[in-house]
Amino acid sequence: MSPQIGVRPGGRSARVQQAVHDAVRELLAERERDELTVPLIAARAGVTPSTVYRRWGQLPDLYADVAVERLRPDTSPADLGSLEAELDTWAVQYLEEMASGPGRRMIADVLAGGLDNPRRCLCSTYSGDQIQVMLDRAVARGDDVPDRDTVLDRVVAPIVYRILFTDPAPEPGYATRLVADLLAVSPAKAGPPPERADRR
Amino acid sequence: MSPQIGVRPGGRSARVQQAVHDAVRELLAERERDELTVPLIAARAGVTPSTVYRRWGQLPDLYADVAVERLRPDTSPADLGSLEAELDTWAVQYLEEMASGPGRRMIADVLAGGLDNPRRCLCSTYSGDQIQVMLDRAVARGDDVPDRDTVLDRVVAPIVYRILFTDPAPEPGYATRLVADLLAVSPAKAGPPPERADRR
Repeated sequence: MSPQIGVRPGGRSARVQQAVHDAVRELLAERERDELTVPLIAARAGVTPSTVYRRWGQLPDLYADVAVERLRPDTSPADLGSLEAELDTWAVQYLEEMASGPGRRMIADVLAGGLDNPRRCLCSTYSGDQIQVMLDRAVARGDDVPDRDTVLDRVVAPIVYRILFTDPAPEPGYATRLVADLLAVSPAKAGPPPERADRR
Repeated sequence: MSPQIGVRPGGRSARVQQAVHDAVRELLAERERDELTVPLIAARAGVTPSTVYRRWGQLPDLYADVAVERLRPDTSPADLGSLEAELDTWAVQYLEEMASGPGRRMIADVLAGGLDNPRRCLCSTYSGDQIQVMLDRAVARGDDVPDRDTVLDRVVAPIVYRILFTDPAPEPGYATRLVADLLAVSPAKAGPPPERADRR
C-alpha cells in the first residue's frame, strides 16, 4: 500500500516491477479486466502472489501504478521555433490522448489508486517537466515566459477538469484557445486584453 | 448502470433514492466502508437488494451517486457587493471543502463511478450554477464580467487539478490568487497585464 516512488533502474526491484507491469498490460490486452486476479498476474510475471500483494496491496493500486508508468512521456516536445507553436502542439496532443478511451481509462486508474497515493502526483510532474522543456527553449530564444505552474493551471488543469467532469469531451480547439489566451497576456506579448467575445 | 439524471421530486423513485442514500450515509458513519454490502444497505433502507442492484449496479456507482448528491450546494453564494469579494470567498470555501478528507473522499467516489457516468458532470454544473449567480449579480451592478466557462477554467479547474494531482493540498491563498489573476485581466478592470513576479 506504500508503493516506492523511486526504483533503482536495473535492480531486482525494478525487474520485478517491469515483469509485473508487463504481465498486467498483456493480460489486459487478452481478457476483460474483471477476469484478472493477483495470482493470474503473478503467474504471468513469474513471481509469487505475495510479492504482488506486498508491493502493491490490491489490484487498484497495481493498476494505478501501471497507468502512471504509461503516462510517462517517451519523447521531448518538438522544437518548433516558438513557444506558442510548441505549447499548442503539445496541448492538442495531450488533450487528444487523455480524452481518448485509453486515456480516460488511465486517468481513472490513477485516481482509483486513491488520493493519498503519492504516485498520482507523477502525472503533474510529467506534464510540468514537458512544459519546462518548452519554457527553457523559449527563454533561450530571449522570450519572457509564464512559469511552469501557471501553464499547468491555465492549460493542463482545464483540459483534465473538462475530461473528468463534462460531456462531451473537449475538442482539440479548446486546447488551442487555452494556449492562445495564456500567451496573449504573458509579458512576452503584453498588449490589449484579449477579446472575451470569442471565449467559449 | 444507467442512473437517472432527473428524478421527479416526491415520486416513488425519489423516495427510494432518498432512503437508499440515507442508508449509505448512516452506515458509512457507523462502520468501515469495506464492511458495507448491498444487502446491508437495502435492509437499512427498507428496500430489496434487487432494487439497489437494478438502479445503481454495483457499490461504486451507488457511492458516486451519494457523493454527487452531497456536492449539491444547499445555499447561494453570499451577496458581498462585488464580484471579486464574492468569487474569492466562494473559491476559498470550495478549496477548503474539496481539499478536506471528506471532500477528497467525495471527489474520489464520484470518479470511481466511472468517467462514462453522466452524473459526474453534475459536479461542474453545480459549480457553474453557483458562479452564474455571482456573475448575474455583477452584471446587474453594471460590471463587465468573464463568462461562466472561463471562471470554471481559471478558478475551479486548477483547484481540482491540484487536489487530484499534487501534494500537499493547495492552501486557501491559492484560490485567492486564481481569482485575483482572473479578474485582473477581465474587461471590467482592463489595465496593464498583471505582474508575473508575484505569481507562484
